[in-house]
Amino acid sequence: MSAPDALAELRDRLRRFAAERDWGQFHAPKNLAIALSVEAAELLEHFQWLTEDASRGLPAGDLAKVREELADVLLYLVRLADELGVDLAAAARDKIELNARKYPVDKARGTSRKSTEL
Amino acid sequence: MSAPDALAELRDRLRRFAAERDWGQFHAPKNLAIALSVEAAELLEHFQWLTEDASRGLPAGDLAKVREELADVLLYLVRLADELGVDLAAAARDKIELNARKYPVDKARGTSRKSTEL
Amino acid sequence: MSAPDALAELRDRLRRFAAERDWGQFHAPKNLAIALSVEAAELLEHFQWLTEDASRGLPAGDLAKVREELADVLLYLVRLADELGVDLAAAARDKIELNARKYPVDKARGTSRKSTEL
Amino acid sequence: MSAPDALAELRDRLRRFAAERDWGQFHAPKNLAIALSVEAAELLEHFQWLTEDASRGLPAGDLAKVREELADVLLYLVRLADELGVDLAAAARDKIELNARKYPVDKARGTSRKSTEL
Repeated sequence: MSAPDALAELRDRLRRFAAERDWGQFHAPKNLAIALSVEAAELLEHFQWLTEDASRGLPAGDLAKVREELADVLLYLVRLADELGVDLAAAARDKIELNARKYPVDKARGTSRKSTEL
Repeated sequence: MSAPDALAELRDRLRRFAAERDWGQFHAPKNLAIALSVEAAELLEHFQWLTEDASRGLPAGDLAKVREELADVLLYLVRLADELGVDLAAAARDKIELNARKYPVDKARGTSRKSTEL
Repeated sequence: MSAPDALAELRDRLRRFAAERDWGQFHAPKNLAIALSVEAAELLEHFQWLTEDASRGLPAGDLAKVREELADVLLYLVRLADELGVDLAAAARDKIELNARKYPVDKARGTSRKSTEL
Repeated sequence: MSAPDALAELRDRLRRFAAERDWGQFHAPKNLAIALSVEAAELLEHFQWLTEDASRGLPAGDLAKVREELADVLLYLVRLADELGVDLAAAARDKIELNARKYPVDKARGTSRKSTEL
């Protein structure tokens, strides 16, 4: 038997979590997209006054808080994808393949330019 | 042999993708957290003038774009967690357990109040 | 003598506020743009589980908090524009004129479609 | 006669702009708060891969785009405050006074710590 896939497991647990609390009424995709965006900003807040270098070496206490914010983003992302009927893992694989075509190694190496400016 | 876990597979592919393009110099956690937040807002933009009901029934064309934005959020999230050395799946499981304690079924049923107001 | 313009007055007070605290070192436009985005999300958080109708009739206590978040967004916006040497009021007037051309009354009436879809 | 105040002038022009296009139906505070947050992220996007130093010296072409994004943020902020019945200039003045108490010069000089950590 294969190990359960982490994304599928999360999706099922969150679906049950919401159902037990009768939260379906609040979980319109519009509201979940807001919540996701708010959590992404809470994550970003931890970095706002840090230099890039400092952001690579967070103290353990800060990292523990950041870890929790990363989880919050993932939970809303998985919940939103589920409400929309989107298979997140498949969508991500498709997007990596698209990015590989948009950012070929020889043109994209060492630059942060957008694909339209390569 | 077990099926590869989707999150672990994404992490490895994205790590290779960035290395091949020498993008490590841009991928400071601070910058990835910005990119994640920007992608979450691009996702949200699709919902900004929709009613909640309309957000539950996106036309196929819009859903295809939204699916791509969901993927973008996941890709940056996985990349950021990897740069920070955070195991996303474990962090998400820990957060669900924390949420289960903060939002017990009997108190949280049918309300969108924060845990501190239950 | 004319009344002092509110935006110019804010710009000058915030410039002095930052100088007195030696905060110029933190106020790179990149960091201020992050802070602005974080404050906009804190504002948005107040609305995330509300219906549109409920958002039109906030209780007084919530409105007081929202008023403070609106102020935070304006403060960072004014500070960022100042660091970039942008005259906010002039930029806003130019944008309204551009929007008037992009959204002519006869085409834009009663629709939330983007200008490119009118 | 005093010069018209820029914020009051913007508020009135935007109110008329929305009324002429019958956009009141879309301009629930919830939706305007989303739009504001989306615009703040579009502004932030211009800085995402720049170093802090580079963000202090934007090329003229980039600055022109950033100027337009700054305007977009202000327009939605003014529209949202108007729909909520908030006097933005007064709210900003109140917040500066609060911040002056929270961040006294002798404690806040040269640090980006939060007021609760001073």
